[in-house]
Amino acid sequence: MNFNAKYEETKKYFEEKLYSLIDNLSISDETLKTAMAYSVKAGGKRFRPVLMIETAKMLEVNIEDIMPFALAIELIHTYSLIHDDLPCMDNDDFRRGKPTSHKVFGEALAVLAGDALLNLAYETMLRGIGGIYKVNASRLLSRFAGYQGMIGGQATDVLSEGKALDEETLNYIHQNKTGKLITAAVLVASCVSGDKYINELRTYGENIGLLFQITDDILDALSTSNELGKTVGKDEKAKKLTFVTLYGIEKSKQMAQDCLNNAINAISDVDDNEFLIELAKYILDRKS
Amino acid sequence: MNFNAKYEETKKYFEEKLYSLIDNLSISDETLKTAMAYSVKAGGKRFRPVLMIETAKMLEVNIEDIMPFALAIELIHTYSLIHDDLPCMDNDDFRRGKPTSHKVFGEALAVLAGDALLNLAYETMLRGIGGIYKVNASRLLSRFAGYQGMIGGQATDVLSEGKALDEETLNYIHQNKTGKLITAAVLVASCVSGDKYINELRTYGENIGLLFQITDDILDALSTSNELGKTVGKDEKAKKLTFVTLYGIEKSKQMAQDCLNNAINAISDVDDNEFLIELAKYILDRKS
Repeated sequence: MNFNAKYEETKKYFEEKLYSLIDNLSISDETLKTAMAYSVKAGGKRFRPVLMIETAKMLEVNIEDIMPFALAIELIHTYSLIHDDLPCMDNDDFRRGKPTSHKVFGEALAVLAGDALLNLAYETMLRGIGGIYKVNASRLLSRFAGYQGMIGGQATDVLSEGKALDEETLNYIHQNKTGKLITAAVLVASCVSGDKYINELRTYGENIGLLFQITDDILDALSTSNELGKTVGKDEKAKKLTFVTLYGIEKSKQMAQDCLNNAINAISDVDDNEFLIELAKYILDRKS
Repeated sequence: MNFNAKYEETKKYFEEKLYSLIDNLSISDETLKTAMAYSVKAGGKRFRPVLMIETAKMLEVNIEDIMPFALAIELIHTYSLIHDDLPCMDNDDFRRGKPTSHKVFGEALAVLAGDALLNLAYETMLRGIGGIYKVNASRLLSRFAGYQGMIGGQATDVLSEGKALDEETLNYIHQNKTGKLITAAVLVASCVSGDKYINELRTYGENIGLLFQITDDILDALSTSNELGKTVGKDEKAKKLTFVTLYGIEKSKQMAQDCLNNAINAISDVDDNEFLIELAKYILDRKS
């Protein structure tokens, strides 16, 4: 099976589990459930769970053992988008071609739907927990999602808007805001396997995390709104420091290529690494 | 030692651990840490952790075993207050006599500080986890904090503002928004002990949760802003349905007394129940 077909198959398998989780929430207030489901079902690449599941398969972890973590990481990603889109944060009206949560449900419910999805991530993970390997995996995900990880990156991003930033701060923001959850996807799979190839996968994860952000910045600078399904050219308008505004398009493309090479080299000795190598290439070549 | 002295001793012990946790966060962005610490250190009764710790002592659980959960429940309570105070939610300028988080740090950082504290609650709990009893305790806390619990109550509360509400909805809101986390405090201790007196403690927890909310509503209707350290008389201004606006002061007082009696009766056969009985009485008699 080629890469695209395999990606779509895993994505479809994952989305069935995700939608089943959301549809079966026993919840008194239908509006809260609707708001939670709206963002969860708004589409997206399901990049983090697909990466986690395929890493787990590569490491011969049972799919039932990894699934609670795959659901959790996508729920964490989804809650962070709802809160990121709020008027007080990025103030985005569209996400994945659809009105953002607060445009549909109001700000108060968007805040609460985000909170509920973060909490549901942990509830789901805790249901699947047992044994020290999975406990370690949960601990890692909680660290990478929190103040030392994704939220740390978001906070520095918010606080530095409109300021003259240096390279170090840009790197910190992206290593954390985008990179930590992508790195967590591979490391959680390694933890559940009993730390197989954990150092190789950390290097791979950090590099594709950076690659993901650089190509995001390039896409924002070059694409049309229609292709991305969200407001583009926003970064420049908001005077946000990005890889493109700091280094220009050509150097950014070179940096992306370096990240790809580093990622591929890191896992070159790992058995059954084909999917992860193709996935890294796909990040560089993607159009949205 | 009398009740007040014991309460203060446990509160002081807990706050030392809580402040140590916050002060030792290794965090790149000082502003995020400052915002997290600001709300955590803003004071408060520490009602939920004190209740949990004293319940654990009553059930002969080691204090080291309950502490991660006591820290987690206070962090969850604190994040929920930050988000509740936001302009899009209750729009409160003061909390515990101090400006609310978004008044000091701006809305974006208040959202993120709340997210970070919720995440830190789970990170802290997961660090303390091991064995099925503690896993069960974490699962219970995640359920009671989430869409079926506290957040469910907050959502129904937000959605019903300005609407004509019935008794059933009022009860649902308060059983969940306030009651679930208070009930969780005693049930988590029971889970960690291996489910000792779990049914008795559930009835106790549900009744003191309701008692807590009824006395809150009575205090809001009767107190001055100075005594409570927050804006009062707000409920009536906001046309919020409360126990007082629905039943009047006298009937509310009677309901509070009934809750107290039910709580005390529920645990009358439990050994060493003195503190929990005094605590229930204290909720009814409190002035803030």
